[in-house]
Amino acid sequence: MEKPYVVGIDIGGQTAKIGLVDARGNVLVQTAIKSNDTEDYKAFIKTLCDAVIRLIGKEYSLSEIRGIGVGAPNANYYKGTIEGAVNLTWGGANQIIPFSEYMSKTIGLPVKLTNDANAAALGEMTYGVARGMKDFIMITLGTGVGSGIIVNGNLLYGHDSNAGELGHVTMVRQNGRLCGCGKAGCLEAYCSATGVARTAREMLEATDRKSVLRNLPPETITSKDVFEAAVEGDALAKDIFEFTGNMLGAALADFVVFSSPEAIVLFGGLTRSGDLLMKPVVESLNKNVMPRWKNKIKVLFSQLKESDAAILGASALAWELGSEG
Amino acid sequence: MEKPYVVGIDIGGQTAKIGLVDARGNVLVQTAIKSNDTEDYKAFIKTLCDAVIRLIGKEYSLSEIRGIGVGAPNANYYKGTIEGAVNLTWGGANQIIPFSEYMSKTIGLPVKLTNDANAAALGEMTYGVARGMKDFIMITLGTGVGSGIIVNGNLLYGHDSNAGELGHVTMVRQNGRLCGCGKAGCLEAYCSATGVARTAREMLEATDRKSVLRNLPPETITSKDVFEAAVEGDALAKDIFEFTGNMLGAALADFVVFSSPEAIVLFGGLTRSGDLLMKPVVESLNKNVMPRWKNKIKVLFSQLKESDAAILGASALAWELGSEG
Repeated sequence: MEKPYVVGIDIGGQTAKIGLVDARGNVLVQTAIKSNDTEDYKAFIKTLCDAVIRLIGKEYSLSEIRGIGVGAPNANYYKGTIEGAVNLTWGGANQIIPFSEYMSKTIGLPVKLTNDANAAALGEMTYGVARGMKDFIMITLGTGVGSGIIVNGNLLYGHDSNAGELGHVTMVRQNGRLCGCGKAGCLEAYCSATGVARTAREMLEATDRKSVLRNLPPETITSKDVFEAAVEGDALAKDIFEFTGNMLGAALADFVVFSSPEAIVLFGGLTRSGDLLMKPVVESLNKNVMPRWKNKIKVLFSQLKESDAAILGASALAWELGSEG
Repeated sequence: MEKPYVVGIDIGGQTAKIGLVDARGNVLVQTAIKSNDTEDYKAFIKTLCDAVIRLIGKEYSLSEIRGIGVGAPNANYYKGTIEGAVNLTWGGANQIIPFSEYMSKTIGLPVKLTNDANAAALGEMTYGVARGMKDFIMITLGTGVGSGIIVNGNLLYGHDSNAGELGHVTMVRQNGRLCGCGKAGCLEAYCSATGVARTAREMLEATDRKSVLRNLPPETITSKDVFEAAVEGDALAKDIFEFTGNMLGAALADFVVFSSPEAIVLFGGLTRSGDLLMKPVVESLNKNVMPRWKNKIKVLFSQLKESDAAILGASALAWELGSEG
């Protein structure tokens, strides 16, 4: 293998993480830069390229790098653009940034771009628990609910590169919670970390049940608080996970009839809850799925180290460059 | 093109339709045989091969045929088998029939097998309204609700070849209608032809509203009766289509976030209702979909002649054989 390394870059609203990765998924060196100190995308990309070159340093060489994979919000895989990224200082509602083209020209390496959840799915297939699988669904449970769908060994992008927005299927059709996307009743409004906190506030308000969560100002409650309360045996906190897992499992049951995956991989902050989440998810999936698939779909937690996962996911995209020259 | 024809075969519970098809989707000659007069699959396949050879006759030759595409219930595309087909006299709950292999050996041509809804999607992509599209979803609205999902120009089969059972997403989570699949609340229990008839019976029983449908014994009401009543201006019958279209549109909205299709193609008996169905479907889709896709997804009726569609769909599968030798 002449070019043994790839670079993975994960661009978030505040920082961009950069790592040099080998084929086994070892992050050899890594660094991070601020992603929000300029409104000029060209300035950001130049700073980013400088950081990549500093990271590679004297120990490695640009000529050993197959390419750069970038995970970013609002990424268009087909066009290599970042479109309407209102959460990036150098983005904007109507702005289309030719990210891959400009970065590639600046650094002299091929650059591929996809969104964060898609990158996570590629990372899991390349280095993680989905190695060897050709059909699986990745669900990321963080501030929001994201997804990356692998079909026959490839990411499902769809007509416009936006496929796999599974956080926005409608789970509650009557009086559903308003979602950040603008519609109501979305999975994301219930089964994200913020959704769990909302459920806690709703349950505390709707009943008089005892709970250690009542010691906290309601608006400060986080999913971590709920988790810690549940671990201590708090019955209300456990019910919150039961409710969340039930709904997520019901959603997964609908996803299964769509793409008939071998497995569903759960990733992100909420998965630290372990069995508190996994048990109701699996029960609800098998209760709600078309009988043909009952007890046949593996539900797995990601095996990527959380601190490396974003870089690994993005880096996985760069291995795809191998087959294209 | 050295081999200009393919054979399409659609196997139903009572008849198997056979047609010789050219690359433009003309059914040059066609015939049909009974599919339910034997319990021996080998006997059935032999009769089927004889019928194909008789159909080709003296005007055409086996050497001009690229291959045979077969649409059948419970077809496993990967293995070329028909598995657990309880509705076929020569099938059976635990039987795995090596259909493609046995037919190919018997007639000396390559044989490919898929299920009916998948065949319909291929037919639409090859000869119909989805020509040139790489990402669309076919929904068949007949006795049941079937689907075929095209992703990047290929059918989505999933891990076990059973992907695309969109009739079995759960649309009603509380007290949903029992579905033929064994679970409750499925799309198919509401938006199939039989679902429309069930809605009619339920609405007639639940209210005292006037309707010409009250002239019929409730158990005999069909979706065609409801359609005819609606065309005559019957308000209750119109409401039945409104209800059906609303639910179907809401389901389509969830499908869109999965695979981000260019279009959704509706096919089958229920589509004869035209605007009575289309109008509420499109309204509900755009009301329920993630805002990003609002008014961006085409909803189309199939353009394949209904009498030829089953043969055309199956025949489309045989063109795939071109690239494999």
